[in-house]
Amino acid sequence: MAMPVVDFLYEFASTYSYPAAMRIEAVAEAAGVAVRWRPFLLGPIFAEAGWTTSPFNLIPAKGRNMWRDLERTTAAMGLPFRRPDPFPQNSLLAARIATALPDDGRRAAFSKEVYRAEFGEGLAISDPEVLGAILKRLGIEPAPLIVAAGSDQVKQVLRATTDDAKAKGLFGAPSIVTADGELFWGNDRVEQAVAWATKPT
Amino acid sequence: MAMPVVDFLYEFASTYSYPAAMRIEAVAEAAGVAVRWRPFLLGPIFAEAGWTTSPFNLIPAKGRNMWRDLERTTAAMGLPFRRPDPFPQNSLLAARIATALPDDGRRAAFSKEVYRAEFGEGLAISDPEVLGAILKRLGIEPAPLIVAAGSDQVKQVLRATTDDAKAKGLFGAPSIVTADGELFWGNDRVEQAVAWATKPT
Repeated sequence: MAMPVVDFLYEFASTYSYPAAMRIEAVAEAAGVAVRWRPFLLGPIFAEAGWTTSPFNLIPAKGRNMWRDLERTTAAMGLPFRRPDPFPQNSLLAARIATALPDDGRRAAFSKEVYRAEFGEGLAISDPEVLGAILKRLGIEPAPLIVAAGSDQVKQVLRATTDDAKAKGLFGAPSIVTADGELFWGNDRVEQAVAWATKPT
Repeated sequence: MAMPVVDFLYEFASTYSYPAAMRIEAVAEAAGVAVRWRPFLLGPIFAEAGWTTSPFNLIPAKGRNMWRDLERTTAAMGLPFRRPDPFPQNSLLAARIATALPDDGRRAAFSKEVYRAEFGEGLAISDPEVLGAILKRLGIEPAPLIVAAGSDQVKQVLRATTDDAKAKGLFGAPSIVTADGELFWGNDRVEQAVAWATKPT
């Protein structure tokens, strides 16, 4: 029997995608589940709801609780935490580079390092130098990736992933979708999503 | 040393308050923590955000996921689930009766039965007969409670709880607040809130 697979749909500007990205592989591996890393853009989905920025900015009390909760969550995981300014960060270049990388471990490694830079160190992930330094640390030559990130093919794939996310009912990130289309939203649902994927059908 | 206490702030129209109400006592008891049951109204807080109904209605994809997630959550807990129509229910009378009841076990018992009626059986909790039947089943004479629910004193206490909730930064329900003012939001944070309450200060 083939290994069950879940789609991990994440947005680089999304706060709770940080802890989820850092732990989904371990949770999935323990259950014998494979993870497809699928970066997408929340902007077009939020725009349809009439939002021009993160709901965490639109509802200040919700935002205050989120930052405090993220601080508690990352502390419990032993992860660094530093709030980036501005929030949300422009995530387009990071999403395009992640899309350009093959999903063979390199996309996951890059994505986790982007989250650590953004929410662990408070760095600007819209800065090509920040992203280039991450690629270098991973042993990947930055220049070809930056070029690929600007290609029509990568833009198209990222747009298709975002359209697919919308079609699957996504309204936030991170979200996890199982092969049978079950949608789980948030860092708090990583375990349930992985368990769902291993259910006998 | 006095037993640590958490404030459990709940709204009868709130979907995730149902599973939280059903399990918070067991979680708290296992940790040696007492629970204060504090019903409040989300309406005035949502109104300040410019919302005229539940965000689950305003963002249809978010609402679809919530109903499905609540179905999964209640199934995992062995609780009945039935979606009430309309949603949200008018929760004012239930909140006033709960406020009128003493927080000595009777308020908790009534509140849990209201949630079971609403989200387990899909009953209208704005119906005085539904609420009266619950009181009767609990061995409480309904008539004096219905009268007390309409008193200025009860209205004032409920308003004060709602004002206090807002002052503590609440933006949704259920929320749990510890004695040192730490705010935890959602059924997913029951364990963390209770653990926080037992931390040495």
